Amino acid sequence: MADTSSGPVVRVAVAGASGYAGGEVLRVLLGHPEYRAGRLEIGALTAGSNAGTTLAQLQPHLLPLADRVLEATTAEVLAGHDVVFLGLPHGQSAAIAQQLPESTVIIDCGADFRLTDPQDWETYYGSPHAGSWPYGLPELPGAREQLRGATRIAVPGCYPTVSSLALAPAVGAGIVEPDVTVVAVSGTSGAGRKLDVGLLGSEVMGSVRAYNIAGAHRHTPEIAQNLKAAAAATGADIGDVTVSFTPVLAPMPRGILATCTARLRPDAAGAVADLAAARAVYDKAYGDEPFIHLLPEGVLPQTGSVVGSNAITLQVAVDTAARTLVVIGAIDNLTKGTAGAAVQSMNLALGLDETAGLSTVGVAP
Amino acid sequence: MADTSSGPVVRVAVAGASGYAGGEVLRVLLGHPEYRAGRLEIGALTAGSNAGTTLAQLQPHLLPLADRVLEATTAEVLAGHDVVFLGLPHGQSAAIAQQLPESTVIIDCGADFRLTDPQDWETYYGSPHAGSWPYGLPELPGAREQLRGATRIAVPGCYPTVSSLALAPAVGAGIVEPDVTVVAVSGTSGAGRKLDVGLLGSEVMGSVRAYNIAGAHRHTPEIAQNLKAAAAATGADIGDVTVSFTPVLAPMPRGILATCTARLRPDAAGAVADLAAARAVYDKAYGDEPFIHLLPEGVLPQTGSVVGSNAITLQVAVDTAARTLVVIGAIDNLTKGTAGAAVQSMNLALGLDETAGLSTVGVAP
Amino acid sequence: MADTSSGPVVRVAVAGASGYAGGEVLRVLLGHPEYRAGRLEIGALTAGSNAGTTLAQLQPHLLPLADRVLEATTAEVLAGHDVVFLGLPHGQSAAIAQQLPESTVIIDCGADFRLTDPQDWETYYGSPHAGSWPYGLPELPGAREQLRGATRIAVPGCYPTVSSLALAPAVGAGIVEPDVTVVAVSGTSGAGRKLDVGLLGSEVMGSVRAYNIAGAHRHTPEIAQNLKAAAAATGADIGDVTVSFTPVLAPMPRGILATCTARLRPDAAGAVADLAAARAVYDKAYGDEPFIHLLPEGVLPQTGSVVGSNAITLQVAVDTAARTLVVIGAIDNLTKGTAGAAVQSMNLALGLDETAGLSTVGVAP
Amino acid sequence: MADTSSGPVVRVAVAGASGYAGGEVLRVLLGHPEYRAGRLEIGALTAGSNAGTTLAQLQPHLLPLADRVLEATTAEVLAGHDVVFLGLPHGQSAAIAQQLPESTVIIDCGADFRLTDPQDWETYYGSPHAGSWPYGLPELPGAREQLRGATRIAVPGCYPTVSSLALAPAVGAGIVEPDVTVVAVSGTSGAGRKLDVGLLGSEVMGSVRAYNIAGAHRHTPEIAQNLKAAAAATGADIGDVTVSFTPVLAPMPRGILATCTARLRPDAAGAVADLAAARAVYDKAYGDEPFIHLLPEGVLPQTGSVVGSNAITLQVAVDTAARTLVVIGAIDNLTKGTAGAAVQSMNLALGLDETAGLSTVGVAP
Repeated sequence: MADTSSGPVVRVAVAGASGYAGGEVLRVLLGHPEYRAGRLEIGALTAGSNAGTTLAQLQPHLLPLADRVLEATTAEVLAGHDVVFLGLPHGQSAAIAQQLPESTVIIDCGADFRLTDPQDWETYYGSPHAGSWPYGLPELPGAREQLRGATRIAVPGCYPTVSSLALAPAVGAGIVEPDVTVVAVSGTSGAGRKLDVGLLGSEVMGSVRAYNIAGAHRHTPEIAQNLKAAAAATGADIGDVTVSFTPVLAPMPRGILATCTARLRPDAAGAVADLAAARAVYDKAYGDEPFIHLLPEGVLPQTGSVVGSNAITLQVAVDTAARTLVVIGAIDNLTKGTAGAAVQSMNLALGLDETAGLSTVGVAP
Repeated sequence: MADTSSGPVVRVAVAGASGYAGGEVLRVLLGHPEYRAGRLEIGALTAGSNAGTTLAQLQPHLLPLADRVLEATTAEVLAGHDVVFLGLPHGQSAAIAQQLPESTVIIDCGADFRLTDPQDWETYYGSPHAGSWPYGLPELPGAREQLRGATRIAVPGCYPTVSSLALAPAVGAGIVEPDVTVVAVSGTSGAGRKLDVGLLGSEVMGSVRAYNIAGAHRHTPEIAQNLKAAAAATGADIGDVTVSFTPVLAPMPRGILATCTARLRPDAAGAVADLAAARAVYDKAYGDEPFIHLLPEGVLPQTGSVVGSNAITLQVAVDTAARTLVVIGAIDNLTKGTAGAAVQSMNLALGLDETAGLSTVGVAP
Repeated sequence: MADTSSGPVVRVAVAGASGYAGGEVLRVLLGHPEYRAGRLEIGALTAGSNAGTTLAQLQPHLLPLADRVLEATTAEVLAGHDVVFLGLPHGQSAAIAQQLPESTVIIDCGADFRLTDPQDWETYYGSPHAGSWPYGLPELPGAREQLRGATRIAVPGCYPTVSSLALAPAVGAGIVEPDVTVVAVSGTSGAGRKLDVGLLGSEVMGSVRAYNIAGAHRHTPEIAQNLKAAAAATGADIGDVTVSFTPVLAPMPRGILATCTARLRPDAAGAVADLAAARAVYDKAYGDEPFIHLLPEGVLPQTGSVVGSNAITLQVAVDTAARTLVVIGAIDNLTKGTAGAAVQSMNLALGLDETAGLSTVGVAP
Repeated sequence: MADTSSGPVVRVAVAGASGYAGGEVLRVLLGHPEYRAGRLEIGALTAGSNAGTTLAQLQPHLLPLADRVLEATTAEVLAGHDVVFLGLPHGQSAAIAQQLPESTVIIDCGADFRLTDPQDWETYYGSPHAGSWPYGLPELPGAREQLRGATRIAVPGCYPTVSSLALAPAVGAGIVEPDVTVVAVSGTSGAGRKLDVGLLGSEVMGSVRAYNIAGAHRHTPEIAQNLKAAAAATGADIGDVTVSFTPVLAPMPRGILATCTARLRPDAAGAVADLAAARAVYDKAYGDEPFIHLLPEGVLPQTGSVVGSNAITLQVAVDTAARTLVVIGAIDNLTKGTAGAAVQSMNLALGLDETAGLSTVGVAP
């Protein structure tokens, strides 16, 4: 059924195909119209200690690839592909990337190339900064243009994706003070497929806990970086951005719900934005975005509605008594928070329809 | 982008669009290639007490349909469609169906037309039998042929789907005694979107319970009916089929895992099937089926791997000490167990590719 | 085995024994040493629409009371008891209380008598204010004294319990600005045993959502009331308290995790509290409290550790970059958040050991 | 508050105190009346790789023991205690036991001394048989007597506990054929606190799977051993017992629900037991047992009702069409299935009230 008449086949490799990010990249690709049309091929799939194992054992939900055997993650194995997705532990992407041609589209789901400030990187990751790549969040001001035709792309962290998209319009419009508070509740897959007692089902089910509090989480500077850029893009003169970020682990596999608050900022006349004004800010920022949905008044985001979807749903409210703007955002951390953004970026890099293979329909209930 | 050049548009209505079955039919249709190509239109969406409400409130995961308003379920509203999916409470389908043209393809996700024996119906449902329609489980012997071009289709129950597919080959081949035991663990969506204290999150999370035990569940005669038909299709002379069926409710939204056991039946020489022989029976029965996957030895079905997928995964084992065949099957009760089977049947009825719009890729983890 | 020699038997009734609050009061009482010693009797158990039903059907975890039949909630049935726990819908407690003798210890798990400001009550509940009773949170400044010997007690809301205890010391000590942000993630039992589609297991499992945002939740003024009182108790001159409160529903039956943040407040010399100073504030406030545990540095509260326990666990951190104090608190909403506080209050009212029948041992994992 | 006047203090050690079994033994002991009265002391707590760590980090729900530091598991550390609970990996108990005095009461929560048949042991565990100890399931015929005053006790496996208690009366009374089928759905804590990808929260939530099917699970011969003993105890002449056992993992931390079925066995006149006769068999067997509750007709066991409780709830039904007896049983795998049985056995060994410290009240919802 494949229609191969219309152009060369794009060959795609996934490094880290035994992890959650890699598995989700494959899930999205298997539904991509280019794959269905035979114009995109899934080539090498690699892993670390799981090399030699079949996907039937490691990713049993990917039945069409059940017989595929994972290879070792080496530049040799990854060479000869047009697009390489990296789902590797922090610090391994740079070494691989250097060995691949500049023309290869490398899309890194890891953190190595997200931060632009070397000091931020060193403070939070404790190693030398490898540099920064175009940032795979097209909905941020100016980002989409950098992604078109790019050959190196840094996929955002999952918490920064939802937090930044939830707050950037308000910060950029100057309707809130630049000291924001984010409490984001995440499913467990955000921690990766990692052997850690605290991630065992017996420990996480029936329990909620915070972790890496008080700015200790590595996504904190990434959120600040995005909000500073949003302010800069609009010329909002709001002073330094600070981010109080608390990640919370909830008993579900997927999803992040971010509660983002900031004090409303009086304008020159001393007035603060009301609900209509706040909604107008978000409508203006995102009215044309295919994946960002400002929900009707009275409907609140829930993570269950975006499972497997590339959508982010938002709701905006004004708390008059507390003089606070409240923005709630929901995403699937593995889709819009990782692999969906990666494929969305690939589409831009390759000149395809940006939404190809990406759905705004969730799997619910 | 729609390519409408190649034929008339098929108009589809969904009655019961506020429930889980109706919502899942819509989820599958939104990803159907005919819909994407503009050759299938989603027309009237109806409900009972929820008429007048938007899908943004009732099915918030179906973002592309968020603005659609539910209408009342009447024959007038449903008229003028080529395909009508019914997701109604038991007993309402017949009245609606009688008022629609014979040429309308009606696909009933309810129970009204599943059972062929009026006595079974009356015993289990306590009302007069409305008749029986072609049975929407193409993988059963002889079923596919009846579905091609059909205009009335009864979608199987979720438990019978997995239980029948798990046991039919062994029963049909005569390698087991006809007294089968099925213990099937289901997610809560199988009970529908029903206000029932026992279905509250606080009650179901952290708990497992059996219900409708000892043959009280209405799916019991449907499983027996399918197994008898499987035996009849192959001429297996195994005597009366009995089914000990226990449904169990587990704390998850979707999925059924069925553990099906039956004593191995000695052949004329007194020998019983070994693992290779048992696997051969299933390979032969399902080797060409696109949605039935007999897993490699050592890999066991899990419901999480088929969430949102139309696949059924099976594993077969022989318990020598207990002289028993063990077959484990997993499906998504809402997809292969309901709406996926409904769309698969629609495809056959309309002469489309049977697998169109149906994936074997699950959303995991 | 009962030792009845040492005094009269206390007779206890529970109104609303079919709900989660009433069930938890009974669970705690069944383990109370006075009950075990035969000096406390469980008398009338009442309900609304569930009157006439056995606890075997409604509270199957209370096996020792399985044969007890619920009576209707009337003053006649509740008369003749020394202690009456009320777990009724809002607005019903006052009418019942007026018909019972002043000497009866009435412990109201509902909201009717929590708020001291009639305006707050009317704004949030839309009905005339019934008054206020001694507040059943002994750990707040001055509260314990009012509870000793009291015959009318208002049990705090679950969110206010954890939020107030988490923030009162810092607010009272004046180390933070009085504009606090609370994002509290709760299990579903906090919503009661209520037939609501949004509380069905299929809807809540695998999903997290916020609700009643931007100050709409009725617990908002109760938190503010407690923090104002804490500031007043110490004479902290911090100005008006504002509370930005966001409740979030998580897929678990029990537990609340509150993330509480507030900007650090410079002292006269412009310095803000460091971690040691912040911990010292909490040590001083709670060092002798049997149910409040400031965890060792590096250990974070998790709700799973306090399931069934009357403990609240706290952790304190200073976010230097965001100039923010972060306090995380965890409770079981049904125990310390409702029924445990109720029994703790009963102990004080009756002159028993305050901790009798209340454990700091959780059921985990 | 301790009353030490009435006798010597019993000193208890727990080896494997960082695991789930050890943690649950401690949870139960902390509520034991002998501990509260100061007549039972919790002495050495040991672990393997976790030695040196505090319980605040490893068992954060045991707040009263938060400061306790785990020691290495050696005979020296365990010496000097009157009772030693062992929660060790299989194969380690014998070596420790040999080094402790014969007068020390050793209660092994592991498997080493459960099986009486060396061949069974070697087949299922692949190592030499260490022997068998009195079996800590007092409710089985003859078991209680062996436990009184015993100094070596083998705590049963969790699956055998509920399966054996559910089936023993029917097998012993000869009302069913001796070929039983058990499908038991368990929470994840039954697998222990083990670093295994398949036990990660992301993998188990939202999914159900079978494992060790077709007789491969090590609890299979233990169930058969118990049922054979039950038949022997009553002299039922039913022939060889076979057990088809399928364990299923469900997304919850605690609990086992066992669905046990067996064909009804005709008596000499060809009649099979009806419901009244079947219930009479169970009433007779368990009428006086404090921890076994045959539920009223129409009420079905659910694991959520026995969380943290030492109760087993049972329901019995007759499936006339399938000529089958159906028995459903529910326990908490960590309490009645492990640590509760261990403490119940300790009570018998020490001559205390058998029910001391053990509750039939669950923590629900």
